[in-house]
Amino acid sequence: MTNPHITLVPGFRASGVACGLKKGNELDLALIAADGPCTAAAMFTTNRVRAAPVLYDQCIIQAGHPVQAVVINSGCANACTGEQGLRDARRMAEMTVDHLGLPSEAVLVMSTGVIGQLLPMEKVSAGIEQACQALSHSGGADAARAIMTTDTRPKEAATQVEIEGRTVTIAGMCKGAGMIHPDMATMLAALVTDAAIERDVLQHALQATVERTFNMVTVDGDTSTNDTVLLLANGQARNPMLSDVTSSAYREFANGLLDVATALAQAIARDGEGASKFITIQVTGAASWGEAKQVAKSIASSNLVKTAVYGEDANWGRVVCAAGYSGVPIEPDRLSLWMENRLDSLYLVKRGEPFEIDEARASAILAEAEVAFRLDLGSGRESATAWTCDLTHAYVDVNAHYRT
Amino acid sequence: MTNPHITLVPGFRASGVACGLKKGNELDLALIAADGPCTAAAMFTTNRVRAAPVLYDQCIIQAGHPVQAVVINSGCANACTGEQGLRDARRMAEMTVDHLGLPSEAVLVMSTGVIGQLLPMEKVSAGIEQACQALSHSGGADAARAIMTTDTRPKEAATQVEIEGRTVTIAGMCKGAGMIHPDMATMLAALVTDAAIERDVLQHALQATVERTFNMVTVDGDTSTNDTVLLLANGQARNPMLSDVTSSAYREFANGLLDVATALAQAIARDGEGASKFITIQVTGAASWGEAKQVAKSIASSNLVKTAVYGEDANWGRVVCAAGYSGVPIEPDRLSLWMENRLDSLYLVKRGEPFEIDEARASAILAEAEVAFRLDLGSGRESATAWTCDLTHAYVDVNAHYRT
Repeated sequence: MTNPHITLVPGFRASGVACGLKKGNELDLALIAADGPCTAAAMFTTNRVRAAPVLYDQCIIQAGHPVQAVVINSGCANACTGEQGLRDARRMAEMTVDHLGLPSEAVLVMSTGVIGQLLPMEKVSAGIEQACQALSHSGGADAARAIMTTDTRPKEAATQVEIEGRTVTIAGMCKGAGMIHPDMATMLAALVTDAAIERDVLQHALQATVERTFNMVTVDGDTSTNDTVLLLANGQARNPMLSDVTSSAYREFANGLLDVATALAQAIARDGEGASKFITIQVTGAASWGEAKQVAKSIASSNLVKTAVYGEDANWGRVVCAAGYSGVPIEPDRLSLWMENRLDSLYLVKRGEPFEIDEARASAILAEAEVAFRLDLGSGRESATAWTCDLTHAYVDVNAHYRT
Repeated sequence: MTNPHITLVPGFRASGVACGLKKGNELDLALIAADGPCTAAAMFTTNRVRAAPVLYDQCIIQAGHPVQAVVINSGCANACTGEQGLRDARRMAEMTVDHLGLPSEAVLVMSTGVIGQLLPMEKVSAGIEQACQALSHSGGADAARAIMTTDTRPKEAATQVEIEGRTVTIAGMCKGAGMIHPDMATMLAALVTDAAIERDVLQHALQATVERTFNMVTVDGDTSTNDTVLLLANGQARNPMLSDVTSSAYREFANGLLDVATALAQAIARDGEGASKFITIQVTGAASWGEAKQVAKSIASSNLVKTAVYGEDANWGRVVCAAGYSGVPIEPDRLSLWMENRLDSLYLVKRGEPFEIDEARASAILAEAEVAFRLDLGSGRESATAWTCDLTHAYVDVNAHYRT
């Protein structure tokens, strides 16, 4: 869809404002608000060190309260900030509750940025007031821009599906760039829909989707303290309530959600810190989806694979090596490997025996901005796909001086 | 010890020659030969994809044959090379057996370099003949140089211990630089000693040592297909046979072995690909050594920690974040963290609460070539130390065009 902002979904307004958390008057505080209460589902980082807003949101989600707004700041992660950090996260929610006249506990909070620094609450307070005033049905683009950190562009996606004669819209925005690795690959994503859907079905849909989208992305192997994916459903599409995960109506919704989440997850890998190439790792012929995933992510996480693609060097041995240390009991003499782009597919290894590389074709494939490796394990019929980017000089630039 | 070459150990000769596997007439084939049969212990990569020489050596070691020589080439890893690769590895051993007049199966083989290419056996054959002729009691330095790939300097260590009135010498050499991660952190290491020691005791000593030395190093998180550590003992020191791992004589030997292996493991991290700084991660206050190790290695493997140190940015939140996703059930509010060098120790986090950073002291610490983070988990009395290097522009340079 063109201009796939979250405010495409009926009943949602948004805004993005600048309150001085980032340098140069950049947008740094986003707000999403629904016209009425929403069913909410969420997934959070598996890091044992969880940021204050993650701890706060987990309580709200676990209690099962309806949610009506999400306030998000960039520039400071409010992580590793002790008791004061928890008070600040709660205060962000309370200020939003006050300004919008919502029930307490109807607001979720997300933060992203530097770890280990306290939020400058005077600036945040002014930003929340400003964001509440700026809410509009065309504010999605500003919101998507306000949650960026080292992202070079906003990440938005939307789709529409027909559910029993009603049009249901699903849209989302996310930010990525660095500290990107499972479980919960993105630092922050907010998805909204006007579907009518029961709470446990919504959570089921979110988990199934995240497992195959955000959790299949890696940029640098570091799982963040702040990873959060939220999904809000306001029911305004007036479709018959989705309450059965085996129904065809649910499948329509789940496929639409998968489309939006896949587009956002791929956008994170494409815009990984310093990235010059988008890399797809497809693993086929696995005994189970879990094993296919484990091998795909091991390859996608390899610094050596990522630097070789950056250097446009067909050093495919590193792909096989990373499969070998994935922890999956692969059989080396059953492995087959191809390097591919949209135009060509170069067969590199056939059941454990290497071909001599056609360097001209290899160079042509690697010269493209999108490169794929397809590895067949020869052990079954399951497959999985992971996405990553190359490891470049620019990645080192971005991360050597991130805090300063 | 000054000039700590492996040929310091009585009864061992070595050589290093150039046979055209590397460019520019660099040394690329090493040979270690004992005057008589040695007891041998070894540890190999845990990668499911094991190079042909690893598969060959595993058979020899498992059969328990005495070993009298080790032939090592750099420039080509002979990994992912199928049946032909296995034939080539066996042929390297047989050629050495023939030239030196040894019993068959008395020679081990190691290879390191590019994965997925066949060995140019004509060059290797000429190299082995030349290396056999060049064997000498002063050839250790050449051998250490001939096993280098992207290493910028040879890595050698030696020590002497007294065991029941007899002087026992232990020496080793290794190579590292890239594709360095547990389990079996080094690509190749050869250790030799003149101790008289039973075979199962020798293997016990090697395993205990490797676990706390080579397996505590990471450069880039990629576990190689060729990792091998060998330990040969020729018994010429004529100490009473070491046969009891609880004896004080064994402890003398084990401590000496630990000293040599620690020096070699640290040398690998210091000379990691593109490294400008040597980083020590010390984890204390853990419930078990295993948990301390897991946290230390998670931090040492973090690209974000490594780039921050390169940029001399005291972004300590990344250290806590990497502890959080280590898989160990740490308690965030019990964590204490220090950043240290030889001269100063800066307290950053006290039981979960951050201090405001003294940026001047932080900068002074980070300006040094050796930096340490000490993390106390507040959960017990065990500790572990891991070693790594920073992630630099030069790492990307080295790996973007390694093959070409």
